[in-house]
Amino acid sequence: MRAVVIHGPGDIRVEDRDYPELKLPTDALVRVTAACVCGSDLWPYRGVRPTEKPRAIGHEFVGVVEKVGDAVSTLASGDFVIAPFVVSCGNCPSCRNGVTVACSHRAAWGGEDEHGHYVDAGQGEAVRVPLADGTLVRVPGVTEPEAALAASLLTLSDVMATGHHAAVSAKAGPGRSVVVVGDGAVGLCGVLAARRLGARRIIAMSRHADRQALAREFGATDIVAERGADGARKVRELLGGVLADSVLECVGTKESMDQALRCTRPGGSLGYVGVPTGGPELPIGVLFAKNISVAGGMAPARTYIPELLEDVLAGAIVPGRVFDVEMPLEDAPEAYRAMDERRAIKVLLRP
Amino acid sequence: MRAVVIHGPGDIRVEDRDYPELKLPTDALVRVTAACVCGSDLWPYRGVRPTEKPRAIGHEFVGVVEKVGDAVSTLASGDFVIAPFVVSCGNCPSCRNGVTVACSHRAAWGGEDEHGHYVDAGQGEAVRVPLADGTLVRVPGVTEPEAALAASLLTLSDVMATGHHAAVSAKAGPGRSVVVVGDGAVGLCGVLAARRLGARRIIAMSRHADRQALAREFGATDIVAERGADGARKVRELLGGVLADSVLECVGTKESMDQALRCTRPGGSLGYVGVPTGGPELPIGVLFAKNISVAGGMAPARTYIPELLEDVLAGAIVPGRVFDVEMPLEDAPEAYRAMDERRAIKVLLRP
Repeated sequence: MRAVVIHGPGDIRVEDRDYPELKLPTDALVRVTAACVCGSDLWPYRGVRPTEKPRAIGHEFVGVVEKVGDAVSTLASGDFVIAPFVVSCGNCPSCRNGVTVACSHRAAWGGEDEHGHYVDAGQGEAVRVPLADGTLVRVPGVTEPEAALAASLLTLSDVMATGHHAAVSAKAGPGRSVVVVGDGAVGLCGVLAARRLGARRIIAMSRHADRQALAREFGATDIVAERGADGARKVRELLGGVLADSVLECVGTKESMDQALRCTRPGGSLGYVGVPTGGPELPIGVLFAKNISVAGGMAPARTYIPELLEDVLAGAIVPGRVFDVEMPLEDAPEAYRAMDERRAIKVLLRP
Repeated sequence: MRAVVIHGPGDIRVEDRDYPELKLPTDALVRVTAACVCGSDLWPYRGVRPTEKPRAIGHEFVGVVEKVGDAVSTLASGDFVIAPFVVSCGNCPSCRNGVTVACSHRAAWGGEDEHGHYVDAGQGEAVRVPLADGTLVRVPGVTEPEAALAASLLTLSDVMATGHHAAVSAKAGPGRSVVVVGDGAVGLCGVLAARRLGARRIIAMSRHADRQALAREFGATDIVAERGADGARKVRELLGGVLADSVLECVGTKESMDQALRCTRPGGSLGYVGVPTGGPELPIGVLFAKNISVAGGMAPARTYIPELLEDVLAGAIVPGRVFDVEMPLEDAPEAYRAMDERRAIKVLLRP
């Protein structure tokens, strides 16, 4: 089969790999119908995180179950499924606590499962999914979703679940004012999630016309293009002299965290989901004095998918709109370039 | 009048000061009937925080209103009142948001109000209280509380409100397992607050028999004397293989924060109230990977007092038990020594 492999900074190739086989009775084999490139895939692509040796890449995909192992009870071949961005069992204490990203049996796409078997990455034609009952979410009543629906379902793998995690962590909800730092796909999904949770006022910080437009479509009531102290001043002005109740940090750099802290009112809540990259530790003195609470981290997508899925199937949210470009899997190198150069918000890859 | 003045590390004196007068129509004059020494008073006493010049000290007191300015509407002379550890107006956005410690008109005891008038500190015979309606809480139906009640009322000034803030910030509540790091007066009040909020299991980390006993009296179900990795292992063992849902950090050092993080389960909540002293910034990588939320900071005592007061007056909680020593104000130097040397948990000073 064909799969995307990263060899080093800027070096993305599409290569031949063995078609996966079931290895364990708890496995499922999924034929990928859509995958995509994550903002966090750009860290190794840009060399910000090292690539020790060539490895298959991609952790977001949807597809059709081809085969299941004997111990799989909730899935059957032909089911259309969403894969969250990590493998989780569904039974350990962390899974039962809803923190599936801390599953005791956790495995990463493109890594190994707990038994040492290779797990395919998401940007490829097929994936062996360990702990399939715990990991995959079946989409009820759908076998071949049309393109727009498939795109929205694919966002539940990571980007929409992550935007939702930022919004939940920042306590976005009725009566709350919200600022979203970061106009990437996660930030835009954060806007959508904040609106879905009922936030009163949603300020998207963005300097790009196309992203501003999508932010407005997703529910942003205001756009702030300024940054730093100017940006915070603008937020305060828009909110009648007070900073925001809820701030979503959706980038993961020192600058974005600073921006988020500057925009949070005393006693406010900061939800962060940007993978910390070169970012500083959190300044406890600032948090202490302003009584700012900080929550977030890696989104437990598996936990959130059922609730978000319901709204996607009902058409209440259309997070698939974050995909502004679609390419065949073979064009993955160009997909990475387009996202790296910010010519695309998020690229959907079709194997 | 007599008041406690810090001159430098280890140098506490009781000196003569002018008896305060009303300066503004929003002021009240309070005759202090009980004050106390805070763990945070030990930072300048130990030289961890500098003392530039001699200054009156103390930010926890209760007493009787002697006089009020013309603009004070909720208080009258003869009222018994609790003073939270900062002055707040009650009307600005932060006060309305319940974050009184970030009040726009905030002033500190022993500092100056926003008009540049001196504000007496709490360890003295009398205090001019600015913004009295916003700041003070009248104790209904009480004019001369007996000693035990007065001690419990005094804890609402800071220590019990702060323990409560730690518990609330850590989401202690029904069904939750709780670890309290720090067996000082704040940590012990954190135990009491966690029990009051309905926590299922409360583990106090303490190595001192007297503090362990009080922790048990306040509702601790278990005591862990071990620290570091051993302490966390013990917690995990007591909780059946999982770390705690809620952890209260009640010290403010690098070590105590590390301990707190080690004891928090993935997806758990850490509430911190220890004044950060030499502590590090929060390690965002750990928080991100474990999905730990962090909240707390300076307790909005003014916001919490009414609800806690009700339980104190009903006898449902007796936080005054944290005072294991009582001395006349004149013995303040010995009070500081006793707390510094950990011979006393918390000393009540009677002017």
